[in-house]
Amino acid sequence: MNYEQIQYLTESKKSFLCVGLDTDLSKLPTSLPKNAEGMLQFNKAIIEATLPFAVAYKINTAFYEALGAEGWNVMEKTLKFLPKNIFKIADAKRGDIGNTSKLYAKAFFENLNFDAITVSPYMGEDSVKPFLEYENKWTILLALTSNLGSQDFEMQKLANGHFLYEEVLQKSQQWATHKQMMYVVGATQAERLQEIRKIVPNHFLLIPGIGSQGGDLQKVIEYGKTKFGGLLINVSRDILYASQDNDFAEKAYLKAEFWQKQM
Amino acid sequence: MNYEQIQYLTESKKSFLCVGLDTDLSKLPTSLPKNAEGMLQFNKAIIEATLPFAVAYKINTAFYEALGAEGWNVMEKTLKFLPKNIFKIADAKRGDIGNTSKLYAKAFFENLNFDAITVSPYMGEDSVKPFLEYENKWTILLALTSNLGSQDFEMQKLANGHFLYEEVLQKSQQWATHKQMMYVVGATQAERLQEIRKIVPNHFLLIPGIGSQGGDLQKVIEYGKTKFGGLLINVSRDILYASQDNDFAEKAYLKAEFWQKQM
Repeated sequence: MNYEQIQYLTESKKSFLCVGLDTDLSKLPTSLPKNAEGMLQFNKAIIEATLPFAVAYKINTAFYEALGAEGWNVMEKTLKFLPKNIFKIADAKRGDIGNTSKLYAKAFFENLNFDAITVSPYMGEDSVKPFLEYENKWTILLALTSNLGSQDFEMQKLANGHFLYEEVLQKSQQWATHKQMMYVVGATQAERLQEIRKIVPNHFLLIPGIGSQGGDLQKVIEYGKTKFGGLLINVSRDILYASQDNDFAEKAYLKAEFWQKQM
Repeated sequence: MNYEQIQYLTESKKSFLCVGLDTDLSKLPTSLPKNAEGMLQFNKAIIEATLPFAVAYKINTAFYEALGAEGWNVMEKTLKFLPKNIFKIADAKRGDIGNTSKLYAKAFFENLNFDAITVSPYMGEDSVKPFLEYENKWTILLALTSNLGSQDFEMQKLANGHFLYEEVLQKSQQWATHKQMMYVVGATQAERLQEIRKIVPNHFLLIPGIGSQGGDLQKVIEYGKTKFGGLLINVSRDILYASQDNDFAEKAYLKAEFWQKQM
């Protein structure tokens, strides 16, 4: 999927909503079996319920790897429930030396056919480059994350006066343009979005941290939105676990509608 | 496995050798099928051949994920070939917000029974902590990696005068001691090991980059070794692909012996 297609998607659906499929066995509704099959049924129902409002889905690989090979199968099958014109993100936070990143790119872009993968910038350019070799596939680089630990290194001031996450935003623009790269900025860091938009005025930003993590949606939109949109705002737990009963899909529908209406 | 057990292992085997099972389908010897079954047979033969010389094995998860669910099964089965008293590392470079890292820890420590996992420090303390909640399991934090891209951020000078990787070494010591944490330092960065040992005098270091990546073993040992050892030195391609013919296991034996003799 290319930049214009994602832009068209957000404009035509009037939505920045990305539904995070952080499917946790222990939180499945009581009507579903707590195994791989239950997880798959749950994902199918959630996707059907939220599709009118979502432009993207984000699969958090940890939740699937926790089930081993079976979980990997659930991930593969879940992807097949998603229509072609929906943006599919592997929230995998990978990144390694070149020959290894190349294999991660193969796993997620070729075999699983994700449109995008989240990548950690720590190891630098040659750990990111292999993901950029795929046309119409996206690298979503971690910049400023939503968690408290973002203070530890991301918010370290460098000798050149930048914060580390600003250096990541600046340096990585030499590797790819806004047509191939996005950045993760946590919704809990909304007050920094104005500064961030000065560095990356045209990039899509993937914004986690709305809902259970307590980020402020209105501030994210006020400070983060560009003339053309430029946001993918992720909500996971607040939609997925809106109800633990048989009406979980209806409640997920209502929650997705609620978030989309505010966007 | 605890600190003393790893130390005993390196002393009794007179070896720091960690064999990296970066098993690449396209490089399997011609006698083996280029599929999951071939990969498993290859790993079994390599483990049997190198076990007299190795103290640790490191599974690079990318090579297995590239085969999807089947690859995950190969990883599981490969672990079963490894004896209990061998140190087993998941080179997975994971790290995410707390509830997600918790699931990665479950996947690698509980389900797969690895002794250790490599973790990226970028997201800070709460992304690392869940891995530290397991007794006798190890977090191997990326500090200064072997690739060129290590210049981009790891070697950035901070306002406080440290390099970013030094800040990682220092700050993370508040999260765990040398009885739970190790660090990745690339063999290609051997000349920095003297400085690094001033910051982490007692920690085990996992050193990749020997062999195909061109690191200098003698310098690594000269600058990195402690009174008690404190090194796990990884060799992958140089042992795995010592021969593409039927004698691949014999050649791997000889290569492993060669490296162990120099340690």
